[in-house]
Amino acid sequence: MRDVTALESVDVTLELNAIIEDYFGRNAAKAEKISPYYGQLWQEMNRLVRSGGKRLRPKMTLLAYRAFGGTDIKAILPIAAAQELLHLSMLIHDDIIDRDYVRYGVDNIAGSYDKLYESLVSDKTDRLHYAHSAALLAGDLLISGAYQLTLESPVDPAKIIEIQKIFGRSLFEVAGGELIDTESAFRELGAIKAETVALYKTASYTFIGPLAVGALLAGASVEDRTLLRLFAKNIGIAFQLRDDIIGIFGDEQQTGKSTIGDIREGKRTYLVEQFYERATPDDIESFNRYFGDHSIGQQDAQIVKDLLIKSGALQKTEEVINAYETKARSALDGIAINPELEAQLEDLIRIATRRQQ
Amino acid sequence: MRDVTALESVDVTLELNAIIEDYFGRNAAKAEKISPYYGQLWQEMNRLVRSGGKRLRPKMTLLAYRAFGGTDIKAILPIAAAQELLHLSMLIHDDIIDRDYVRYGVDNIAGSYDKLYESLVSDKTDRLHYAHSAALLAGDLLISGAYQLTLESPVDPAKIIEIQKIFGRSLFEVAGGELIDTESAFRELGAIKAETVALYKTASYTFIGPLAVGALLAGASVEDRTLLRLFAKNIGIAFQLRDDIIGIFGDEQQTGKSTIGDIREGKRTYLVEQFYERATPDDIESFNRYFGDHSIGQQDAQIVKDLLIKSGALQKTEEVINAYETKARSALDGIAINPELEAQLEDLIRIATRRQQ
Repeated sequence: MRDVTALESVDVTLELNAIIEDYFGRNAAKAEKISPYYGQLWQEMNRLVRSGGKRLRPKMTLLAYRAFGGTDIKAILPIAAAQELLHLSMLIHDDIIDRDYVRYGVDNIAGSYDKLYESLVSDKTDRLHYAHSAALLAGDLLISGAYQLTLESPVDPAKIIEIQKIFGRSLFEVAGGELIDTESAFRELGAIKAETVALYKTASYTFIGPLAVGALLAGASVEDRTLLRLFAKNIGIAFQLRDDIIGIFGDEQQTGKSTIGDIREGKRTYLVEQFYERATPDDIESFNRYFGDHSIGQQDAQIVKDLLIKSGALQKTEEVINAYETKARSALDGIAINPELEAQLEDLIRIATRRQQ
Repeated sequence: MRDVTALESVDVTLELNAIIEDYFGRNAAKAEKISPYYGQLWQEMNRLVRSGGKRLRPKMTLLAYRAFGGTDIKAILPIAAAQELLHLSMLIHDDIIDRDYVRYGVDNIAGSYDKLYESLVSDKTDRLHYAHSAALLAGDLLISGAYQLTLESPVDPAKIIEIQKIFGRSLFEVAGGELIDTESAFRELGAIKAETVALYKTASYTFIGPLAVGALLAGASVEDRTLLRLFAKNIGIAFQLRDDIIGIFGDEQQTGKSTIGDIREGKRTYLVEQFYERATPDDIESFNRYFGDHSIGQQDAQIVKDLLIKSGALQKTEEVINAYETKARSALDGIAINPELEAQLEDLIRIATRRQQ
């Protein structure tokens, strides 16, 4: 997703990256004192966070903060940056669950440890297990790290506690979303709705949480925060539905991610749900021959893509994204914020729902 | 390990369990609203925490709190209980790393999900992977849950922040300890010292952190907290060395844990380190035939045990435990606390270093 343009003018990406860089640097040094092998894990995490990520969630916090009149950006930067650590922890653990080894177009933690351990552990299964173990610990450190980074903000401790409650809710919801998303690959059709997954796995910690944190820090009213939550929920679900489309139909060069992974994993996205509701029995039979099969190649994947288009599932998903977009805009209309920042939130809607990567 | 007896008089186990039970109950209800499958994960976590655990870490916090004159036990119970959630998160993730499926003599999270998914996922490798994924998320929830539970204490928010910093340090150290402990199974001999692992993997979050939290809450002086940390470090390392002995020579009936797991995993404990330093080349060759082999049975394990005794490694480890015990007692002597509670800390030394389970 391209950067939230309006925020670039204040060099906020650089400032956020400086805080993140400093956090990883300090911890790598502390880890090094325990063991060079532990220092290495922190270096790997630092490498990964440097390789990509648009700092979308921190920017969302800053956007909401400014939209509701907050002015002390510097004071809240550690809290904004903490959202990136939370996000990174979830990415790392999500990749373990999905058995993915590439992120941001480079090796993720498990991917790089698999190579690192190559000369040490000859058995491939054992090596992958140890690589996953390192990634597991990396994610744990970043969950705790997200909480720790909030403690570095000079805002009132009582407010930090309120913000941590939002963090806790985000993590609670994203873990639930992740669990049912994973189970949807093998539970009976219809048992888990893709829109529920999109709400809890994505909207919750990508949009609702970060925007709520910014609004709370700026002292927004309960009414405004309620409407902002509604805005965030709708934009967040639309964002995930777009992500599902990109996951299968996206340009690998642009996304830095394989488009075959979701097909191999048999992910029951909204797109796939719509396929099963619309396709002919013959087409469903063809589809099931490849969908969820870890051994398929690009040609088989193309058959799956063609069937998704033919059934009308892609078209339907696009329509539903539009509907969520309308609902997000309607919630936004009820909030009184300054026009310049309202335009940025409008921009955010377009970027989240119409993006190509 | 048997309960810290002196604290039983105030029914503290019941009170701690009530807080933990309430925490899981509330979250299971919230999770159920997202999806019954998510509710199930919380039920499984609740089942596990009910099946065992001596609430050692929370009791340690309460012990230090009372030792330094703290009186409002009720106010700090959520913070004490939070240490149990942190511990449980580490146990669940540790079991993933060790590929163990039993804890407290019952199925752990991965173990019960492996059974739960039996009718849904026929491929054994895939099923175990999904079971590990559920356990991964359970641990994540409890790391965040530990932080969340501290927020429920009515103590000053500024103090909660100080306590969370101790939590952060504990998690940072235990993750490092866990990483190097795992790597010690395949890194060259001597690259990772077992005493370093014992300090960071065990002493840190089992003794140092919980005692530091209690002392801080009671307003202990910096000097006393420094000596308490020294006490905790020594007792903690001794505790781990004892644990390594029990892990191989313990009574499975008493411990509820297989004694073959550590041998199969090839864990380079202090005991094993001492073996390699002392044993004859022939004995090392015999030892290596079984040690670290996942397919060995009880008879092979017995050969390993006999070699550990014959080499003098067991004897040496017992001596070193005694030395740590002496150092712990010496640190304790420098702290001025009331004699009744000093006796309890003395008791704690004996229990930690001489226990049979």
